[in-house]
Amino acid sequence: MALSYELRCRECGKRYDNAPLSICDECFSPLEVVVDLDAARADFTREKIAAGPTSMWRYKALLPVPDDYVPPTPAGWTPLLKAPRLAQRIGATNLYIKNDAVCLPTLSFKDRVVSVALANAQIFGFDTVGCSSTGNLANAVAAQAARLGLKTYILVPADLEAAKILNTQVYGANLVRIDGNYDHVNRLCSQIADRFNWGFVNVNLRPYYAEGSKTVGYEIAEQLGWRLPDNVVVPMAGGSLITKIRKAFKELIALGLVEDKPVRFFGAQATGCSPISTAVKTGADHIEPQRPSTIARSLAIGNPADGVYATRCIRESGGWAEDVSDVEIVSAIQELAETEGVFTETAGGVTTAVTARLYAHGRIKPDELTVTCITGNGLKTTDALNGCYETQRAVRPRLTDFEEYLEEGHQELAFGGVNVR
Amino acid sequence: MALSYELRCRECGKRYDNAPLSICDECFSPLEVVVDLDAARADFTREKIAAGPTSMWRYKALLPVPDDYVPPTPAGWTPLLKAPRLAQRIGATNLYIKNDAVCLPTLSFKDRVVSVALANAQIFGFDTVGCSSTGNLANAVAAQAARLGLKTYILVPADLEAAKILNTQVYGANLVRIDGNYDHVNRLCSQIADRFNWGFVNVNLRPYYAEGSKTVGYEIAEQLGWRLPDNVVVPMAGGSLITKIRKAFKELIALGLVEDKPVRFFGAQATGCSPISTAVKTGADHIEPQRPSTIARSLAIGNPADGVYATRCIRESGGWAEDVSDVEIVSAIQELAETEGVFTETAGGVTTAVTARLYAHGRIKPDELTVTCITGNGLKTTDALNGCYETQRAVRPRLTDFEEYLEEGHQELAFGGVNVR
Ligand SMILES: Cc1ncc(COP(=O)(O)O)c(C=O)c1O
Ligand SMILES: Cc1ncc(COP(=O)(O)O)c(C=O)c1O
Ligand SMILES: [Zn+2]
Ligand SMILES: [Zn+2]
Repeated sequence: MALSYELRCRECGKRYDNAPLSICDECFSPLEVVVDLDAARADFTREKIAAGPTSMWRYKALLPVPDDYVPPTPAGWTPLLKAPRLAQRIGATNLYIKNDAVCLPTLSFKDRVVSVALANAQIFGFDTVGCSSTGNLANAVAAQAARLGLKTYILVPADLEAAKILNTQVYGANLVRIDGNYDHVNRLCSQIADRFNWGFVNVNLRPYYAEGSKTVGYEIAEQLGWRLPDNVVVPMAGGSLITKIRKAFKELIALGLVEDKPVRFFGAQATGCSPISTAVKTGADHIEPQRPSTIARSLAIGNPADGVYATRCIRESGGWAEDVSDVEIVSAIQELAETEGVFTETAGGVTTAVTARLYAHGRIKPDELTVTCITGNGLKTTDALNGCYETQRAVRPRLTDFEEYLEEGHQELAFGGVNVR
Repeated sequence: MALSYELRCRECGKRYDNAPLSICDECFSPLEVVVDLDAARADFTREKIAAGPTSMWRYKALLPVPDDYVPPTPAGWTPLLKAPRLAQRIGATNLYIKNDAVCLPTLSFKDRVVSVALANAQIFGFDTVGCSSTGNLANAVAAQAARLGLKTYILVPADLEAAKILNTQVYGANLVRIDGNYDHVNRLCSQIADRFNWGFVNVNLRPYYAEGSKTVGYEIAEQLGWRLPDNVVVPMAGGSLITKIRKAFKELIALGLVEDKPVRFFGAQATGCSPISTAVKTGADHIEPQRPSTIARSLAIGNPADGVYATRCIRESGGWAEDVSDVEIVSAIQELAETEGVFTETAGGVTTAVTARLYAHGRIKPDELTVTCITGNGLKTTDALNGCYETQRAVRPRLTDFEEYLEEGHQELAFGGVNVR
């Protein structure tokens, strides 16, 4: 069966047959999957999509898998929530949350990319798969590989959050803690993938992996009633997700599924690891690597593989990038939970805080239709909130004791906003 | 607008208009919502359901809310996963997991009941809502009430798991730790609801609340292609969920949406809190309360409100109940994660271990279509796995160091099943 996708060099355009390859042998630029939109046209209609599974696989025709691929695990089709209460707090009137904290096997958007990568790992015949990870990718690879019965090696910086470590080990994965930051881990993984012929989802399978992120964009458009938003705010680590949401929108426009309109892309980073937002803000055309130091560990990539492409995506679209402090990240986690009932991890705190700042600085106008991407669940980074809440005294189980407790002043907690932290 | 549901006493049948009431004033038995199936018939067709939202609200016509109710938060429509690898380990051939660890705002099935309860809290005009909880209900009430801007008082046993406490506080809820077990907390909540006129979802709103659990049953049937399974395995705390799944199946049969067939119901508890399974196993017709002592805190209700009904449901259906030790619970959490990539909380460990035992004892035959209900996410009870995994030494980020590390013997971890714990 002829496949309707192949690899192409992002810079020189050289084409490659499908293979576990990520770098062009001519010019050493990254390779990308190109899907034949004309071949997909017949299967990628609003009607056929609506009749498909309620998961990211409803968009299979634009993902790099064979037509007859049967996905083993549902993932995606996460909620797009109207966020009126958060909007009010930050001066917005038309704000949505794309909530990738739920409806994904390991509760982050990384399940999307891993689904596509492991499909290709199986096609290429790898019996051992793995990744270098800042945490969420580790969880996703471990869980999905377990279900497929694949052997797994997962390499992470040694100081990862406890919940992310456990949420990798529990699936029986081989978790290897590396004495270094993500950039060290990632370099090592390139060598390992070559040496052992393993399928590393974000190394030799990276072009396939990255396509999975397009499904965030497809879902946003479909959930808005096949419309594009005015603005999207996206957290950035390696910088891939933001570019793939843009690619998704462009494909939808090319296929006539949505009206062509400008969408501005806004990138979010933590100040403690802000190589991409710094490049955007300073107008630099290259990325100056940083040594990360932030509680937003999932975004702590100091030398982002797709940093230049993320910068271009933001600039070409007329967007902007911002970065926020660790304190702002924690407050934003609380703000989002208190207003919309969505508990996100540190990366979502980054996105929420950056979104607030973009409105405050007038970079986004109140009534523009804006989607902010929450990409992971708060139960993954509970340590970030250590010390935020007092443990209150235990109350005896009697009505009079409860009334006394209320009178002690615990009552004001009940009135919106006045929150003792 | 006339509502197509009302309250009715489960024992004497006395009818009540809709109100925040849970006990019959004639005979002191629990009240239940009865939905007018004939009124719902026109809206509850396979086609209309398929065209509805991809959440539990696709079944709105059989839930106690007005026809024009607009749900504020999507919840439910969780995956039904084929579980071939778990099946193989426990001697099954036709096993499914209903995975309520994902696709719910706070990652447990309690989001279903809270959605329905808070809809009614708003209809009844409560400005303050709350619950007594073993943890998951606390999370669900806190999150959904935050989104609605309702004030919240949530009472829990003082020794609840850290993740469940944080996952309540982060939404700005008033969390009150009670010096006692769940049964103490629950008694106090009845008094508080009366005294302050608050809407407690599992106290004065309990009949409405409980209906939300029916959606697990509707989803199972629809996801099986509008068929009923042979067996369902359900974790039990108060004993409500298991009875409501049965009620859902009966309603579907009555409406002609599925063929009538016998379904056996199997209840799962932890041995350290097994009042319902003990009643089933000893043939008792009443529930002997217990003082709970188990790591499965979410199931630690020693005096279950619906224990008698759960017992009847199991017996009438020809099912059975089992209970398992804390050690078995932990192993089952690992087994499920390693085979199917699903990380569940202690309650899911209980269900999985009980499922395994039911096959081992021949109570379920290998080829019967069996659905096991996973009701909460593993990130909520990470403490249960404390000490299960060694922290391995950090490896320097060099290929030779990694090779040395493999040679030290970490390699065998890679081969299915041989897991160093
Ligand atoms: C939760 C979360 N959000 C966003 C990102 C950023 O993705 P990318 O590396 O594609 O920029 C990551 C990457 O690890 C992540 O874990
Ligand atoms: C995760 C989980 N599963 C199952 C149950 C049991 O539900 P029920 O009280 O309806 O028996 C609970 C109740 O708290 C729970 O938290
Ligand atoms: Zn090239
Ligand atoms: Zn009665």
